[in-house]
Amino acid sequence: MRKFHHDRPLLFEPYEWQVVEKQYSEQSNKRNETVFALGNGYMGMRGSFEEGFWGNPENAAPATYINGIYEYKDYVYLWKRPGFPDRTHSILNVPDASGLSFYIDGEKVDMTPERVENYNRTLDMKRGLLSRSYRWTSKEGKIIDVCFKRFLSLDDIHVAAIRCEFMPLNFSGEIIIKSYIEGEVKGTNLGKAEIGKLDMPALFINDMGAGGGSAFFTHVTKKSGFTVATATSDKFMQRLLCNKTVEINEAYKSGHYYYFNVTKGETYSFDKFICYYTSRDTEKSNCKTYAYENAKKCAQIGFEKLLFNHTCKWEDFWEKADIIIKGDPEIQQAIRFDLFHLMQSTGKDGKTNISANGLTGDGYQGHTFWDTEMYIMPCFLYSNPEIVRNLLMYRYNILDKAKMRAKQMGGEGALYSWNSINGEECGFVFEAATAQYHINCDICYAIYKYVEATKDEEFLVNYGAEILFETSKFMAHRGCFIKYRGGKFCINVVCGPDEYTPAVDNNCYTNTLTRFQLNFALETAKLLKEKYPDIFCALCSKIGLDEAEFELWEKAANNMYIPYNEELGLLMQDDSFIYRDPLEIDAIPFDKIPLLNNLHPLNLWRFQVSKQADLVLLMFLRSQDYTIEMKKAVYDFYEPKTIHDSSLSASVHSIVANEIGYYDQAYNYFIQAARMDLDDYNLNTSNGIHAACMGGTWMAVVNGFAGMRVIEGMLNFKPHLPEKWERLEFKILFQGSLINASFTKSSALYTLISGNPIKILSSGEEIFLHEAGAEKRVYAEA
Amino acid sequence: MRKFHHDRPLLFEPYEWQVVEKQYSEQSNKRNETVFALGNGYMGMRGSFEEGFWGNPENAAPATYINGIYEYKDYVYLWKRPGFPDRTHSILNVPDASGLSFYIDGEKVDMTPERVENYNRTLDMKRGLLSRSYRWTSKEGKIIDVCFKRFLSLDDIHVAAIRCEFMPLNFSGEIIIKSYIEGEVKGTNLGKAEIGKLDMPALFINDMGAGGGSAFFTHVTKKSGFTVATATSDKFMQRLLCNKTVEINEAYKSGHYYYFNVTKGETYSFDKFICYYTSRDTEKSNCKTYAYENAKKCAQIGFEKLLFNHTCKWEDFWEKADIIIKGDPEIQQAIRFDLFHLMQSTGKDGKTNISANGLTGDGYQGHTFWDTEMYIMPCFLYSNPEIVRNLLMYRYNILDKAKMRAKQMGGEGALYSWNSINGEECGFVFEAATAQYHINCDICYAIYKYVEATKDEEFLVNYGAEILFETSKFMAHRGCFIKYRGGKFCINVVCGPDEYTPAVDNNCYTNTLTRFQLNFALETAKLLKEKYPDIFCALCSKIGLDEAEFELWEKAANNMYIPYNEELGLLMQDDSFIYRDPLEIDAIPFDKIPLLNNLHPLNLWRFQVSKQADLVLLMFLRSQDYTIEMKKAVYDFYEPKTIHDSSLSASVHSIVANEIGYYDQAYNYFIQAARMDLDDYNLNTSNGIHAACMGGTWMAVVNGFAGMRVIEGMLNFKPHLPEKWERLEFKILFQGSLINASFTKSSALYTLISGNPIKILSSGEEIFLHEAGAEKRVYAEA
Repeated sequence: MRKFHHDRPLLFEPYEWQVVEKQYSEQSNKRNETVFALGNGYMGMRGSFEEGFWGNPENAAPATYINGIYEYKDYVYLWKRPGFPDRTHSILNVPDASGLSFYIDGEKVDMTPERVENYNRTLDMKRGLLSRSYRWTSKEGKIIDVCFKRFLSLDDIHVAAIRCEFMPLNFSGEIIIKSYIEGEVKGTNLGKAEIGKLDMPALFINDMGAGGGSAFFTHVTKKSGFTVATATSDKFMQRLLCNKTVEINEAYKSGHYYYFNVTKGETYSFDKFICYYTSRDTEKSNCKTYAYENAKKCAQIGFEKLLFNHTCKWEDFWEKADIIIKGDPEIQQAIRFDLFHLMQSTGKDGKTNISANGLTGDGYQGHTFWDTEMYIMPCFLYSNPEIVRNLLMYRYNILDKAKMRAKQMGGEGALYSWNSINGEECGFVFEAATAQYHINCDICYAIYKYVEATKDEEFLVNYGAEILFETSKFMAHRGCFIKYRGGKFCINVVCGPDEYTPAVDNNCYTNTLTRFQLNFALETAKLLKEKYPDIFCALCSKIGLDEAEFELWEKAANNMYIPYNEELGLLMQDDSFIYRDPLEIDAIPFDKIPLLNNLHPLNLWRFQVSKQADLVLLMFLRSQDYTIEMKKAVYDFYEPKTIHDSSLSASVHSIVANEIGYYDQAYNYFIQAARMDLDDYNLNTSNGIHAACMGGTWMAVVNGFAGMRVIEGMLNFKPHLPEKWERLEFKILFQGSLINASFTKSSALYTLISGNPIKILSSGEEIFLHEAGAEKRVYAEA
Repeated sequence: MRKFHHDRPLLFEPYEWQVVEKQYSEQSNKRNETVFALGNGYMGMRGSFEEGFWGNPENAAPATYINGIYEYKDYVYLWKRPGFPDRTHSILNVPDASGLSFYIDGEKVDMTPERVENYNRTLDMKRGLLSRSYRWTSKEGKIIDVCFKRFLSLDDIHVAAIRCEFMPLNFSGEIIIKSYIEGEVKGTNLGKAEIGKLDMPALFINDMGAGGGSAFFTHVTKKSGFTVATATSDKFMQRLLCNKTVEINEAYKSGHYYYFNVTKGETYSFDKFICYYTSRDTEKSNCKTYAYENAKKCAQIGFEKLLFNHTCKWEDFWEKADIIIKGDPEIQQAIRFDLFHLMQSTGKDGKTNISANGLTGDGYQGHTFWDTEMYIMPCFLYSNPEIVRNLLMYRYNILDKAKMRAKQMGGEGALYSWNSINGEECGFVFEAATAQYHINCDICYAIYKYVEATKDEEFLVNYGAEILFETSKFMAHRGCFIKYRGGKFCINVVCGPDEYTPAVDNNCYTNTLTRFQLNFALETAKLLKEKYPDIFCALCSKIGLDEAEFELWEKAANNMYIPYNEELGLLMQDDSFIYRDPLEIDAIPFDKIPLLNNLHPLNLWRFQVSKQADLVLLMFLRSQDYTIEMKKAVYDFYEPKTIHDSSLSASVHSIVANEIGYYDQAYNYFIQAARMDLDDYNLNTSNGIHAACMGGTWMAVVNGFAGMRVIEGMLNFKPHLPEKWERLEFKILFQGSLINASFTKSSALYTLISGNPIKILSSGEEIFLHEAGAEKRVYAEA
């Protein structure tokens, strides 16, 4: 396998439930804004400081995002060709309402290194709570301990709460606290160049005010037409004596100055409640009132109660989704870190999704890709299937945009955009964005997996079917029966998952998943026709489907061209890959990676190099269709030609390596994925988390080391634990049965916790858990 | 064959030597600015009016160009990838010095329709003279006949001369003549969108002045650093009584008003001499003086003498290059129109070239493409080989830029830019510009043809070899021996001449010409090594060539992969073409053509459609390598799949159709090419001539209907005249023998006019012309 980019040391000590920073460094500030970011699916807040950043502004990118709130920007092409998208859109920074700073003798308390000691920042993943504390000494020698705690409520998703605890250690007297909303919103645009950089300001102030401990802003966007209301409400403990309150009503700031009298040695706390509402949530005219009243209500409820409600939700999540790995604390921490961030970043309302960077950065403009369906959904599917349903509903809700996109591309039916927030295609690198038609198949595959795991026929009938039929129509008309390929159905000039090999014919992944999707669509049509004839009729009429269309799908599926080399006994990634110029991957110096940034596209394309798992991914997704020998052949041929310039690659290689018994490679690939952001392998964690890589880590554990597959509707496990691991344990909710699976190197123990009796296969051995509480242990062969 | 885009009527009566416009129409103004454009290779002037354009400014695009004078413009990419060119450059409009207008009672004499009658504009192609006359009536009823004559001297290329003859018909009294240079230079950017539109102004005034009948401007460009001096000198016949002269020294105009007393019924003439010099011609500091003094000198020499010298040059050209076609006056006119414009547009100084639009428009930004080598050189090669030598010297002189480009592309040796003026790559559509690596082969092919026709070993040794070696080095390292292609040498991810099928592997044209070029390079290396060892050594050391390199070329040439389908007995255009989605070309409506403007590139690429002659071109270029059956197979397969969205396509199809006996198609394709600009088939003559199409027309006559080839160093003819043609006659200068070839439908007559005895083949029959004056007639079989 290829050498790693970096042999990075652990950046954080491997606590099971925590990420702790004990030494602050300005140079790591942006990276740690990502690592310590909080979110609740509705909104996200990077790990910036309430009191502001003391250092070089280039080393900070504070940002708060609201899922689905974006602004447009027109593309200016050198040559705009037919079907090129007119514009892009990017997730917006919304007003930063976290501003909370102390002044002692006119001096601001902040993280200026020479004034700070006893620094600690702890992310408590179990409770979703971020704490940061330090001891500060003023120029005149006054010492104060401060501690900020904050969370973004998983219970009331509009709400964030901040508590600041502080204790004057060697003085009594006046402390001024400034609590405010910053109404001037700047762009961050982490990572990428000019492409997604919005014209600033993108948010224009519509209304603002402060008084009585509350403050608010209402902003609007000019092109996308959103209204964003930001409100805060401050609250402090009774014994904190307030002499005076001064309202802040500046051009771009609203809030208050509080003048407190404090006593040496006493501990005080000051709470701030933040609330956001946007015109996605309610009428524009209501946003301000909702945010303002809700913030005030939160102040009444109080920090403790809000935190309790929030923590309960996290407990609930971990109860279902946690993975226990004993014997490998780095990995234990990593898998929780990954699950924690995925949960934080995922929209759960059927109208928002998860961006490639989650809600922790805008390196990918807040855009959703196939990452959601192929890398992120699995980790929720067997614990929180309602999240998956909502993510699929997002696709259903943008089906109109996908139909529009199909038209723009001269096609029929629907073509989902490669990257987008609202469904409109933003991908301008047509040969590697638009050309990834497999996004259609991926979504259908995800629908299949969701229905398979949940038996949610209601969803399939009322929503899934329409997506399936529209996208199948597109694929069936995008391909063609080619005479010189024996009349087989070919899909020419596409890009598969390997973005370094675009504009090729018959990408095996794309063709195979298209066949899968067409067959699934035909089965679904049959189901509807037989069981829900009215819905079927209505759908056919809405979409424009007739017998000829279904026959075309059948013919295409039955005659799908699958590139295969008889002589080599090998699936071909596409019609060209094996004929391309060989490249010795291990000889490429690190500073030439990613190749994308170092090779002219004509050179990038001509080399026999895969950016990421392509056929290897297919070996996992359609595991049941291939023998171990076929998988081995694919892995042996393509793995040495894969450079893993995508963070989506390592986890999948780990899974397949596990299956074919390449256990060392399996673990090596796995650790590359598991701590990628935590240890900043690619030096780009600062731009935001790599959500798909995190989801892939879950897959590498559950589908890889535990060897879980669903074959013919039955759960299969085939565990093989890495050397270090003493125990691997997780729960799986499958077709109404909640089971616990616990693996050691010598045995597998399955327990039916609740729900239906279930039959499963463990390393080929059939196991039947007949009632709740039933357990079955299987011993590994020596 | 595909239906024509347009069934257009003749736009101009088919005079043998003239193009005449008798009815003026504002709507045709821009088109006719191109048709009536003059040029001399150094500069070109569109057929605009001396007195200015009277109508809607959108219907005029007056422009004067100087070959090789351009300005830069930075490219702004959405995503600039490695090797993408930083900037483009476009030919500039230089100051319009033709301004010459009459005022009668304060009213300007111009082409306002209600004032004009007896209009006539005649382009005399034999003499290179443009005349325009009309009768003008003032509001008060004063009538004057005016006639403008102008030419751009082929004898002194810096000089243009204008004579205005006029006669007051019904009045005597004052006429004011304004003669001036317009110093404010605007852009035209005909045809293309924003790509090549330079920021205006691009020319900044450095100096100016007027006095004593002379005027001048000196302009500079800011980025490219050119100085352009424009000067005029006026002269009028002695009996034209001048009462007063007023100098014009405005911000953007320099020149004079002349107040004349004229007498009814008398004919007068007023002459204006224009001269341009640029910093390409001399030191910057000299430009003004050279232009100014030369314009004054011209005034002394006088219009008649200058015209005589000019006309002698044209006579000389026609003597060598004319083609006589009896029986088809439309074609007779067309072939002369084509040769006329090619001669006008071609740089002949070894430092300038010929733009795709000649010097008649900037639709292609003044850029040179492969058009020069493959479509334009042939028409000069056998009549004016020194022009071809100079065009090849242009390539030699930009070899440093080609080496730089190779480096940018991560390659070795030299890669010529796809489109450029100064040698820097301007092509930003990388998959169809940069990817057309065959430009290297094309240039080598042209060197071969030049040396073949002239035996100019001095050129080959001192210049050609270096081009050959540098470009061969590039090609040999760009391709690769591919294991799964039996170890054959493949050139992957390229674009052949068919720009609708980019980024494919093993374009047959490219591979075949690369093989040809490598073999030619090896032969040349052998020649040098044996005959000019010092030069060879110096070259090897300069370029970095060793035995291993030559061995690589040999191995690559000997193992070149040529895509061929055994089953179909057919050469493959590339590895993908025959497997692409079929498209019924005849079913495409005219308003969807060119496809380029109507299909998303992924759709354009996936269809089995060729933009232009690709393999069919190869069948002509390497005629000797293919049997008639192979050519027929290629034509039969690819011709129906070719949409001819390039003006380079029809002529080549005509040639090959002729060779394989498809005579109807040969003539039909031919007439599409021959009068393309004259009859404005594609409604884009306004943007400038299609130089390559004009060159292709010559090829279609000489290589097509006369069937001329050079095979193993011997001239071959295989005439087959179209039905209408009574006689086809032209001269050919080949290896020091000047022959006249005259064909009728029943015979071919060859005469050695001068030079060496020569052996030729006429329809397979060997003919020996042993001394000057020797004639041989061959009769066609009944």
